[in-house]
Amino acid sequence: MRGTSAEVAGEPAAPFLRACRGLPADHTPVWLLRQAGRYLPEYRALRARYSMLELIRDAELSAEVSLQPVDALGVDAAIVFSDILPPLQGMGLELDFVPGDGPRIGNPIARPRDVDLLGTPPAEETMQGTLGAIAILRRELEPRGIPVIGFAGAPFTLASYAIEGGSSRDFTKTKAFMLSEPAAWKRLLGKLVTVQADYLLAQARAGAQALQVFDSWAGRALGREDYLRYVAPHNRELFARLARAGVPVIAFSLGVSAYLEEAAACGGDVVGLDWQLPLDEAWARVGFERPVQGNLDPAALLAPWRELRHRIDDVLDRAGGRPGHVFNVGHGLVPQTPVDNVRRLVAYVHERTAR
Amino acid sequence: MRGTSAEVAGEPAAPFLRACRGLPADHTPVWLLRQAGRYLPEYRALRARYSMLELIRDAELSAEVSLQPVDALGVDAAIVFSDILPPLQGMGLELDFVPGDGPRIGNPIARPRDVDLLGTPPAEETMQGTLGAIAILRRELEPRGIPVIGFAGAPFTLASYAIEGGSSRDFTKTKAFMLSEPAAWKRLLGKLVTVQADYLLAQARAGAQALQVFDSWAGRALGREDYLRYVAPHNRELFARLARAGVPVIAFSLGVSAYLEEAAACGGDVVGLDWQLPLDEAWARVGFERPVQGNLDPAALLAPWRELRHRIDDVLDRAGGRPGHVFNVGHGLVPQTPVDNVRRLVAYVHERTAR
Repeated sequence: MRGTSAEVAGEPAAPFLRACRGLPADHTPVWLLRQAGRYLPEYRALRARYSMLELIRDAELSAEVSLQPVDALGVDAAIVFSDILPPLQGMGLELDFVPGDGPRIGNPIARPRDVDLLGTPPAEETMQGTLGAIAILRRELEPRGIPVIGFAGAPFTLASYAIEGGSSRDFTKTKAFMLSEPAAWKRLLGKLVTVQADYLLAQARAGAQALQVFDSWAGRALGREDYLRYVAPHNRELFARLARAGVPVIAFSLGVSAYLEEAAACGGDVVGLDWQLPLDEAWARVGFERPVQGNLDPAALLAPWRELRHRIDDVLDRAGGRPGHVFNVGHGLVPQTPVDNVRRLVAYVHERTAR
Repeated sequence: MRGTSAEVAGEPAAPFLRACRGLPADHTPVWLLRQAGRYLPEYRALRARYSMLELIRDAELSAEVSLQPVDALGVDAAIVFSDILPPLQGMGLELDFVPGDGPRIGNPIARPRDVDLLGTPPAEETMQGTLGAIAILRRELEPRGIPVIGFAGAPFTLASYAIEGGSSRDFTKTKAFMLSEPAAWKRLLGKLVTVQADYLLAQARAGAQALQVFDSWAGRALGREDYLRYVAPHNRELFARLARAGVPVIAFSLGVSAYLEEAAACGGDVVGLDWQLPLDEAWARVGFERPVQGNLDPAALLAPWRELRHRIDDVLDRAGGRPGHVFNVGHGLVPQTPVDNVRRLVAYVHERTAR
């Protein structure tokens, strides 16, 4: 039995990075999807002065936003403040965030020819804001022992925005394109893999100590057979290319409980779990030898503390004190979340799991 | 081995009703979710003159819309044209359909007190349009041997509209209310069970020969444990009350593949399957002794015929010619669906499964 926090040769000390490698840690590390965001007054104050894209494009501002939850809540990792969609701009798609209405692509993909016009420029040329923010965060947080997480969207999720022109409920255009133009679909996802792998590797070079891949919509949009045919090969390719990053990769897919094994088999060192299944069952299906992250329903943070605590306990009980658990929500925090509940959650997880 | 179509004492002759009872039929019956709707030019012509609620409130018009797909496509059953939300009006909620933006509740439920103000008037007083349409349809279709399906929404799905005030992506308000006000939640779902059971039984009395319960959002909104705690008891109660209807009840839940067994265990004679899992696997989990309905992805109808046929074949192959399969889509047809594909689908299923 090795020590729980001693820095053994080559082993990280930060609880988050230890858990990502399946190593025991001083306490269960916790960070939260959308921990930097609209529920924080500090963030809203900045957003009153800058647009979403301005914040993302400015390395200093985006680092500042990323640090807010670290300072305010005591989370165990900082995720760089950005969005999954800006890399589409470098490819030639016109992106805007319409207040109250979410992202909008001005020139969505409608025909195979549109795919062939997409560029695949290197992230160093197109995503300097986010890469710069990561470098700043690493410098700021290294002395405090807090790791920095970089992230990007998975190919299907990005393709869905590029084709729908924004958010979607049924992904009708995306699926029609996928089924009617399978060759162009393959080229599109191929280009997205190129761009996203390059972007994620650049984030690791800039200082990110872990990388999270968000596949928000494949599971909501596709049945298992379509997932295996039209998505899985591209996700596998993406994760294969990320092996060179030398940092743990978290694969977070929403809504794939019906085929969790197949989704997890695409790759990633850590499997990010949504809230659809109890943690122990989902973990068993993924395999206990693999670290997992999750999976409190973010709606629980809108409940009174008594109920919220009961649900945190449930997640921790199901994790059973096994090493390799990163506590997180199973989907992003919503803007209405009371900051106080988030603060109590972080403190409670630390306190209950202190070893 | 009994004859496949002979009207044995007490046994229905219509293929749809036979399949709903697990009996062999002349061919696999087919009808389609949203078979009456915006993809049909006849429907769009009527909608240019009448609002959604006008169509629903007028028995003659709503019967006319319900008959359009029977005449145009040759489907094996007619579902009455209506919507799941109008019963909320009778309870005291202000409903409107905003063009391009979907349903809107003017006075959504925000506090426990709002629940107590909801009425539970009998459907015969509040839903005469739909009940009248069913009577007309039964009269028109009986000579043609086409059964009439009535329907209503499940308690969670209706509660989500009543609380969110319209459609939702994350059901944040609904879940916050559910977790913060569990007693009021229980009263709300109790009232919805009362109203919906009464409404469905009234539809059967009016002539509906099968009833479908739509639980569109519980599976998308809730993890399994919340489903079992906050939804399942109410669904069980609803299905228990429907036993008196004397007609088969189809339980259609969207997005519950992660806990399909538990959802199916709530009740219903026929289990309506969405497109998340291949039909044979989903059917095995439900149990082959129970009839199922499904489960073509409606996006397949946007693909070229070659691909569409391949997918119809896949569903039929997985059904394996077992009695007790009603062919359907796993979610509603979308407005962009080419009518010709729907017509070919119906003809192809009939032709391929003719015994």
